[in-house]
Amino acid sequence: MFKKYETLSEKVNLTGMLKAYAVTKRYLNRTNLIFYSELSRLIGCEAYVKHENHQPTGSFKIRGALNFFHHMSKEELESGILVATRGNHGLAMAWAGQWFHVPCTVVVPENNNPDINRIIESFGAELITHGHDFYDAQSYCDELVDSAGYYYVEQGNEPEILNGVGTMALEIFEDLPDVEAIVCPVGGGAGCASLIKAAQAVNPKVEIIGVQAEKAPAFYTSWKKGEWTVLEDADTVADGLAARSVFQLPYVIMKDRIKDCVLLSEDEILEGIRLALTCTHNLAEGAGAAAIMGALKIKDRLSGKKVVLMMSGGNLDRAHLKLAL
Amino acid sequence: MFKKYETLSEKVNLTGMLKAYAVTKRYLNRTNLIFYSELSRLIGCEAYVKHENHQPTGSFKIRGALNFFHHMSKEELESGILVATRGNHGLAMAWAGQWFHVPCTVVVPENNNPDINRIIESFGAELITHGHDFYDAQSYCDELVDSAGYYYVEQGNEPEILNGVGTMALEIFEDLPDVEAIVCPVGGGAGCASLIKAAQAVNPKVEIIGVQAEKAPAFYTSWKKGEWTVLEDADTVADGLAARSVFQLPYVIMKDRIKDCVLLSEDEILEGIRLALTCTHNLAEGAGAAAIMGALKIKDRLSGKKVVLMMSGGNLDRAHLKLAL
Repeated sequence: MFKKYETLSEKVNLTGMLKAYAVTKRYLNRTNLIFYSELSRLIGCEAYVKHENHQPTGSFKIRGALNFFHHMSKEELESGILVATRGNHGLAMAWAGQWFHVPCTVVVPENNNPDINRIIESFGAELITHGHDFYDAQSYCDELVDSAGYYYVEQGNEPEILNGVGTMALEIFEDLPDVEAIVCPVGGGAGCASLIKAAQAVNPKVEIIGVQAEKAPAFYTSWKKGEWTVLEDADTVADGLAARSVFQLPYVIMKDRIKDCVLLSEDEILEGIRLALTCTHNLAEGAGAAAIMGALKIKDRLSGKKVVLMMSGGNLDRAHLKLAL
Repeated sequence: MFKKYETLSEKVNLTGMLKAYAVTKRYLNRTNLIFYSELSRLIGCEAYVKHENHQPTGSFKIRGALNFFHHMSKEELESGILVATRGNHGLAMAWAGQWFHVPCTVVVPENNNPDINRIIESFGAELITHGHDFYDAQSYCDELVDSAGYYYVEQGNEPEILNGVGTMALEIFEDLPDVEAIVCPVGGGAGCASLIKAAQAVNPKVEIIGVQAEKAPAFYTSWKKGEWTVLEDADTVADGLAARSVFQLPYVIMKDRIKDCVLLSEDEILEGIRLALTCTHNLAEGAGAAAIMGALKIKDRLSGKKVVLMMSGGNLDRAHLKLAL
């Protein structure tokens, strides 16, 4: 099974990212990489935040979505695309789908954030509510594909999505060529895997460090066991980290090359949101703030280094913000 | 007295802004202009937010600061520059001063936000704490200039600061050429005056609408009376709106050309911060959220129009965020 993904992983590379960069530049402004003195003081390093929370749909996923649509042929997409999501992936695909005139059908679980649902619909996507959690929504997609012929976009397993996401790494290397470590949240794994592939090509000495939730340690467990693992559940306050497994493609990229994986308690995730507010004046979602807390937890190892903290997304709802405060 | 500023105001123009644009592009990424469906629904217009809160120092002021330093000669700046600030102006000047190797002395009042003070110092500026409010700090600057020979930067009265700030208008016209109205907070007036000058040159039909606090209606009062006015006090939760007067240069630009000026109660300012969080997932400071509330207050007049809401800055401290929530 993983042989297929080993082969696919060769398609995720610097050339692919440079091609993707030409695409994303047409639609997106570069995001800022900002030095924060207070975070630097706390962590004891030179701390820079990569602000993917400033993207039009509030997360880095938009980069992958644009590059995906750019690479697909009209024929492949004539029945439209289908995605399962709890938020950021669906927002990104619906937003990018508009530019490429591709109809999007987005399946979300029943308890999904109504604000997110409304925004997805405002991008012209058809919204379907199904099942109790993300995995029910995902299973329903399999049924729909069989009956309706959509192209089902499994975000983490599409090489051109990973190449698109990798453009954030290119921007980092342009802005801070001597970066020494990049800390990033790991949900489905696409972001982290892209960073790893980019660093491998540009400067293999750069350490890529993942961050997951103690309550959803899918990659961590797989990595420690040396075997791709699906958890029974993944119930964390950080939606973006609430994955029962990483996708297979990122897994094969990450497993031998990631430097470390830090786990955060629920309290630590909320503390990360508070630190993001206080030290950067940004609203970060749980996953978006996880890199800050992850870095703080391993501050001894990062001491004195030039460290980039990925603020992957900012789509935090009011209830979770209140919880954090 | 105002004859001088009438003459100065001629130096604020599209040519100056285009020249400034070449400067700011070297240092800054473009900021996003993002369409928000939920704000559009609430206000009953096509609502776009210009995200100046995403700038490196968290506000639009950085544009003016960079263009200012670019235009000054080495001789003029050899003793360094001096600014009085409560936050955003000082942050911007200290940040930009680093790039131009100009020593900055920043005077803040005694009760100033310690987080802001620390960041200003982290940019290498010398910080002086003096007096009970911004106006005490400002008076102290006059003394210092006489004794120490600094170049005192009165932000709102420097044409090249206004031309620099005007680059945000150029970005708006590039991204949304058929914009019909721009709503912006009015503190010292530099932002609003720049937008007016840009709109006058590019498309005079675009309505520029200012927003002030009921508790600090310096421009509003001046405009209604037809006479530049200094208020007794200007005590609002929104630091960026807490000006006892607008600067003279913006005043002469704005007085006959602004379309309207909306006043917000303290509760409305806090409601704006909540709306920014909920509808855009951004942390806006009081002034940064004022355009959203101002637009909501005059929604009938904006009905169906393409409207840009200036999110001028995001430097909200935790105490004010808690107050808003």
